[in-house]
Amino acid sequence: MRMGAQIALYPMSDRFIDVILSCIEAVQGIEGLDVSNDDLSTLLLGESHLLFTAVRDMFVRAASDGVHVVLTALFSRGCPGDSYCRGGDARAAAPEPPESSEAPPAAPPAALAPSSSGGRTPIAAQYSLYPLGTPDYMNQILAAVAGAREEGSFTASKNFCTRLEGGADTVFNDLYRGFITAEAPHTVLHAAVSANSPSTKSPTESQTKSQTIEGVSS
Amino acid sequence: MRMGAQIALYPMSDRFIDVILSCIEAVQGIEGLDVSNDDLSTLLLGESHLLFTAVRDMFVRAASDGVHVVLTALFSRGCPGDSYCRGGDARAAAPEPPESSEAPPAAPPAALAPSSSGGRTPIAAQYSLYPLGTPDYMNQILAAVAGAREEGSFTASKNFCTRLEGGADTVFNDLYRGFITAEAPHTVLHAAVSANSPSTKSPTESQTKSQTIEGVSS
Repeated sequence: MRMGAQIALYPMSDRFIDVILSCIEAVQGIEGLDVSNDDLSTLLLGESHLLFTAVRDMFVRAASDGVHVVLTALFSRGCPGDSYCRGGDARAAAPEPPESSEAPPAAPPAALAPSSSGGRTPIAAQYSLYPLGTPDYMNQILAAVAGAREEGSFTASKNFCTRLEGGADTVFNDLYRGFITAEAPHTVLHAAVSANSPSTKSPTESQTKSQTIEGVSS
Repeated sequence: MRMGAQIALYPMSDRFIDVILSCIEAVQGIEGLDVSNDDLSTLLLGESHLLFTAVRDMFVRAASDGVHVVLTALFSRGCPGDSYCRGGDARAAAPEPPESSEAPPAAPPAALAPSSSGGRTPIAAQYSLYPLGTPDYMNQILAAVAGAREEGSFTASKNFCTRLEGGADTVFNDLYRGFITAEAPHTVLHAAVSANSPSTKSPTESQTKSQTIEGVSS
C-alpha cells in the first residue's frame, strides 16, 4: 500500500542538530523511499511496510544516543489530494487531478520485520486514528485499539488518544497494524513516540477520568 | 464551546526540563482551565477561546527563552467518547456514557485577544484538520485553508498538512478559526508550531509537488 508520512524528531539536547541530521541521512539511502524535508518536518513517501520500518529504525537510532527524544508522525494513506498515494510518481512535476476519493483496498495486515538492533528499546507512545469520510469511524478506531490490547502494548485510554508502551518493535507493529487495517480508504494516524524520558510520571487518573468509553482513542 | 487538547512542548536544549515545567506552571493557575499531565503530554480542558489563548501564551513564553522549541497540539471538540466535551465535569469521577455523537453547534468565530507580549514572535506552523464522520470533510478542510489564506498566514500546501507563517497572534488565530468553524460536530486539529529554528530551509518543491489540489491540507 502506497502511503506518506510527515515526521519530526525532537531530541531534547543542545546536540539536537547532529542527532536529527544523522537520522535523516540514514533514511535517505533507502531504496523505494522518497525523502524530502523542510524546517518543520521530513516527508516520506513509499510502501507502507518499508515506510513504517524506516520510521521505527530512525527512532531507535535516535534513542540509542541516550538523549530524551520524541518522534511525531502523521501517517496518511488514500488522501484524495495526494497523487503519490493514488498511484502517481513521487517525483512527478505535474500530477494528475484526483478522479474520486476511492483508494485501492488495504493490503493484508502483516507484522514489520524485527529491528536488526534496538527492537527492545523501551518506548512509550500515544496515537490517534482518523478514518475519514465515514460515519463508522468510531467502530474502526475501537477495532484498532482492540488489536493493540491483544498485542499487549496497549496501556491506557487517554482523552483523544491511546497510550502504548513496550519494546520499539511491538509498539511500532501496533501502530502499523492499526493504520493499515482501518477500513476507510482515506485514513490518517498521528503518533508521538518517546524514549529516555526523565519523567517517571505514568498516566494520571486525571488524564483518563473524563473518558467515557473504554478503549476509545479519539 | 467546550473542548480539550493534548499538548507537548519540545525545547531542543539541555535545559528542556526547566522550560517545560515553567510553561506548565504558568497555565496551571488559569481559572476555568483543567490541567493534568503525564510523561507524554499535558491535557487541557476548557472553553475554546480560553484554551487556545493559553496554548498560544505558553508557546510564546517558551519561545522567549531563545531556545529552538516546538509545540505539538491535538485540539478536539465533540468527541463522542469524552464526557467533558459533551457537557460533563472535567473532574467527574463517573462520567455518563454518551448518547449520540451530536454536539452543540459551534460558537460564532471570534479572534483571540492579542497577547500581552510576544504576539509578533515569528513562528512557523503546520496543521491538519479532521472533520470526522462526514463525507463532506474535504470541503470543510478547504474552507479552513481559505480562511488562513485571507488572513495571510497561509504559506504553502504540503502533503497532508498546511503551512502557516507569521506572528504568533496571527498564526494561532488562524488555527483557532479553522478549528471552531468546521461544521462537523466532532472535529480534531493537529498542529506543530516552531520558533527559533536554526534551519533556514523553507518548504521545498519536493515537499509540495505531489500535492494535486491547491490548498488541500489533508
